[in-house]
Amino acid sequence: MRQPIVDGTTRLLAIAGDPIAQVRAPAMLSGLLRHNAVDALCVPFHVRAADFAALLHGLRGLRNLAGVIATVPHKAVAASLADSLLPRARLARAANVLARGEDGSWTADMLDGVGFVAGLLAAGKNPAGQSALVVGAGGVGTAIAFALAEAGASEIALSDTDPARAEDLAQRLRATGAAARVAAPDPAGYALVVNATPLGMHPDDPLPIDATRLDPAATVADVVSKPVMTKLLQAAQQRGCFIQPGTHMTEQQMAAMATFFGFSGGDWSPAAIAALGLY
Amino acid sequence: MRQPIVDGTTRLLAIAGDPIAQVRAPAMLSGLLRHNAVDALCVPFHVRAADFAALLHGLRGLRNLAGVIATVPHKAVAASLADSLLPRARLARAANVLARGEDGSWTADMLDGVGFVAGLLAAGKNPAGQSALVVGAGGVGTAIAFALAEAGASEIALSDTDPARAEDLAQRLRATGAAARVAAPDPAGYALVVNATPLGMHPDDPLPIDATRLDPAATVADVVSKPVMTKLLQAAQQRGCFIQPGTHMTEQQMAAMATFFGFSGGDWSPAAIAALGLY
Repeated sequence: MRQPIVDGTTRLLAIAGDPIAQVRAPAMLSGLLRHNAVDALCVPFHVRAADFAALLHGLRGLRNLAGVIATVPHKAVAASLADSLLPRARLARAANVLARGEDGSWTADMLDGVGFVAGLLAAGKNPAGQSALVVGAGGVGTAIAFALAEAGASEIALSDTDPARAEDLAQRLRATGAAARVAAPDPAGYALVVNATPLGMHPDDPLPIDATRLDPAATVADVVSKPVMTKLLQAAQQRGCFIQPGTHMTEQQMAAMATFFGFSGGDWSPAAIAALGLY
Repeated sequence: MRQPIVDGTTRLLAIAGDPIAQVRAPAMLSGLLRHNAVDALCVPFHVRAADFAALLHGLRGLRNLAGVIATVPHKAVAASLADSLLPRARLARAANVLARGEDGSWTADMLDGVGFVAGLLAAGKNPAGQSALVVGAGGVGTAIAFALAEAGASEIALSDTDPARAEDLAQRLRATGAAARVAAPDPAGYALVVNATPLGMHPDDPLPIDATRLDPAATVADVVSKPVMTKLLQAAQQRGCFIQPGTHMTEQQMAAMATFFGFSGGDWSPAAIAALGLY
């Protein structure tokens, strides 16, 4: 008897986003779940912003659903719809993971920043004492900014096409004791430059920053994971910068997600992901 | 590069039921979809009766959902919640398949009867001109009764623990010109005896009929598919009856489901299912 891909006993984990075709979580997490002998699958949920609240409400009654991973554009709404927020999600006012309780309640956390900083640390690029420019003050940018503050970054400059949004985030960061301010999207002089906008997903997107202004000693990180080598990362690499693709942020938070969703034990490391040979 | 089990592009088909662990559709349909090179998966949705309407409402916005297969106890409610009913579902007042339209609307059909009769025909047991006893006048029993009437059964006797439900179904069958009546669950004298109740799913369930009263020349069919060999089918086989397990009804409607959900082309036959080697 062959092992089925999925069976009546299989638990589900969904990743909700719009667009959805580019997300790597279904392949990666489903591969890891199978690798770790957990009878669960991660499946894509393509849902528009206007439909997300009704979907999340309906899913309260889906008893074999471990939870939902929220990606663009649902991270802020996910936090607002949750019944309880863990501290990181409360600070970020955004959530990327929602665990479904037995009673149908949603508990939310924000793991993007955790994964982002774990990626830097794994590459030997400790952000402690370093200045950082974060371009994009949405859900993921906010999570990264708070995680950089927690990791001891000396200064966090925030740029957003909506200056009020950047200023709001800067104030919230300062309230936790971090040195944060609004800045132009000019990467000159920063040790760490982060693209936390969706720019780079489409081939004709402009660069989020002027790459010719990058310090060659800087680390440049992207949150876009498809393509892995965005135009920004290519330009940064040409200037001699160390680069961190968006895939690292995702891969480095798999272990935290597994714990959050209750899949304890097993190996959820980037090495285990690489061994799956999916990419 | 290895082919992932599921990816961001994968479409979904859900089977909703309570209980759900016993359903074979996820393994079978997911195997067939992969076999036919369709990037889609069938996943289990464990949802209680009280939560089904809210879930179905929320799923209107799930854009990569091809549809929902409704199983016990959701078949009657599925029909009542659909935006449009195809003729078989309208007659049966029950639906086992709901296709999601681009606009989030639900179109429902009832394929259990189609699969049931296809199973009989494939085994050379044409119900035309034969008398039949159907025990259980719920969603699946209703669909089978209408399919038997359409296939030309000479007489359809209906038994239910709720006599009013059996009488209601008998009247609706007679309205289509069929010879239908309410009867005791006594199998003596029928060429075809069908268990359309859930009895047999649990090891300590009583038999739905008195098997010692079966005509050895009769065909005995069950809708319960797990276990495949129910106590009823075992008893019937010992009496020398020809038997049709519930798995046949499921397997014989895969092609109809594939067409209904828009997965055209490919091989969805019982032979293809057997070749998957899942069971």
